[in-house]
Amino acid sequence: MKAPAALEQLTAALKRLPGVGPKSAQRFAYYLLQHDREGARLIARALDDAVARIRHCVRCNTFSEAEVCETCASPRRDAGLLCVVETPSDQLMVEQTLSYGGLYFVLMGRLSPLDGVGPKEIHLDRLLARATDGQVREVILATNFTQEGEATAHYIGELLRARGLRVTRLARGVPVGSELEYVDPGTIAHALRDRRIVDD
Amino acid sequence: MKAPAALEQLTAALKRLPGVGPKSAQRFAYYLLQHDREGARLIARALDDAVARIRHCVRCNTFSEAEVCETCASPRRDAGLLCVVETPSDQLMVEQTLSYGGLYFVLMGRLSPLDGVGPKEIHLDRLLARATDGQVREVILATNFTQEGEATAHYIGELLRARGLRVTRLARGVPVGSELEYVDPGTIAHALRDRRIVDD
Ligand SMILES: [Zn+2]
Ligand SMILES: [Zn+2]
Repeated sequence: MKAPAALEQLTAALKRLPGVGPKSAQRFAYYLLQHDREGARLIARALDDAVARIRHCVRCNTFSEAEVCETCASPRRDAGLLCVVETPSDQLMVEQTLSYGGLYFVLMGRLSPLDGVGPKEIHLDRLLARATDGQVREVILATNFTQEGEATAHYIGELLRARGLRVTRLARGVPVGSELEYVDPGTIAHALRDRRIVDD
Repeated sequence: MKAPAALEQLTAALKRLPGVGPKSAQRFAYYLLQHDREGARLIARALDDAVARIRHCVRCNTFSEAEVCETCASPRRDAGLLCVVETPSDQLMVEQTLSYGGLYFVLMGRLSPLDGVGPKEIHLDRLLARATDGQVREVILATNFTQEGEATAHYIGELLRARGLRVTRLARGVPVGSELEYVDPGTIAHALRDRRIVDD
C-alpha cells in the first residue's frame, strides 16, 4: 500500500519549504486535504501571483512589484542617507521605529563563505554603485549583530570608506526596558564604551 | 512603507498551514521568492492537483484518487478483518509491519468534544455500516494510546459489541528494544496485566 500519487507529489513539493521535513510536509498535506481545501487553492494562487509579480527594486534591491519600489520613489525621503540591511524584514523593523527618513539598500543575505555567499551574492557591486551616486552622504550599516552580520558590516565598511564615504554602524548597547542583571556582559561592555554624555 | 501586495497575500495564505504563524509564513514566502521560485511553482501545481484528484475511498475513507482505494479493491486482503485507525499515516504504519492482511477504516480524526469533533466528524455511521456488512468477523481498534485515542476506541468498541461483533484492541506493553528502566510504570503495569504464556 502506498499513498495516492497526487498526495505523494504534494508532500514532496511541500518539502521545498525551508525547515520543513517529511513529517511536517505530510502533516501540511493531510491537513489541507482534510480540513482546508479552500486554503490549498488560496496558497496555490498566492504562490503563482507572487512569483509572477514580485521582483527586486532596481535601486534598493528589496522585494517590489514596480521597477522602483515606493520607498525609493518617494520624494520625501532623504537621498543623502543610505541604510544597509540584510533582509526586507530588517528594513521593516527600521521603518517601524518612525525615526529614519533616508533610503535603503537590502543585501538579501549576509556574507557567509561556508554557505557559498560571497560579495556577489549580496550584490555589493550594486551597493557600491548606489552609494557612490554623488547624493549619498552617509551609509548606515544596519546588518545584524551576529558574527556574520558583523563581518558583513566590516567588509562593506572597508569598501565604502576606501571610496571616501562616511560610514556609520547602529549603536550597540543595553536594550530599552531591560535590567542589567539579565543583559550579557559583552553588551554591557559595548554600552560602556559607547556611553553618551547626558546633555538635556 | 509596507511589503508589496502579492507578498502580503502570499504570507497571509501560508498562514493557513497548520502551526504556521506570521513569522514562519514570512520566512517561507521570502525564501521561495529569493531562492526557489521553481519550488513555489511546483508547490502551487501540486496543491491544485491534489485538491482536484484526492478524495476519500467510499469503503475505508482513506485518501484515494479512485472511488475505491487499491487496498479495498485488492482480492488478496482478508475481508473478515477490519482495522480502525485515526489517520492515513497510522494506516501506513500498520502496513509497514507486514503482519496485517485485512482491511481498514480510517476515521480521519479522533473523538474530541472540546474541539467539536463528535461521532459524525469521524464518520461512525459509515464505520458501523461497513463493520456490519456480514463479512467482517473482527474489528481491531488501532487508535492511538493517547487519552482521546483511548476514549475513541472505548466509544467505538461499545457500539460494535452491541451489534454482536468481536472487537479487539492493539496490545499495550513494553516497546521492542527498550530497557525497563526507561519505560513508564503505567506501561509496565499494562505489560504485566497482559503478560503472555511463553509457549515455544
Ligand atoms: Zn527600492
Ligand atoms: Zn479503501
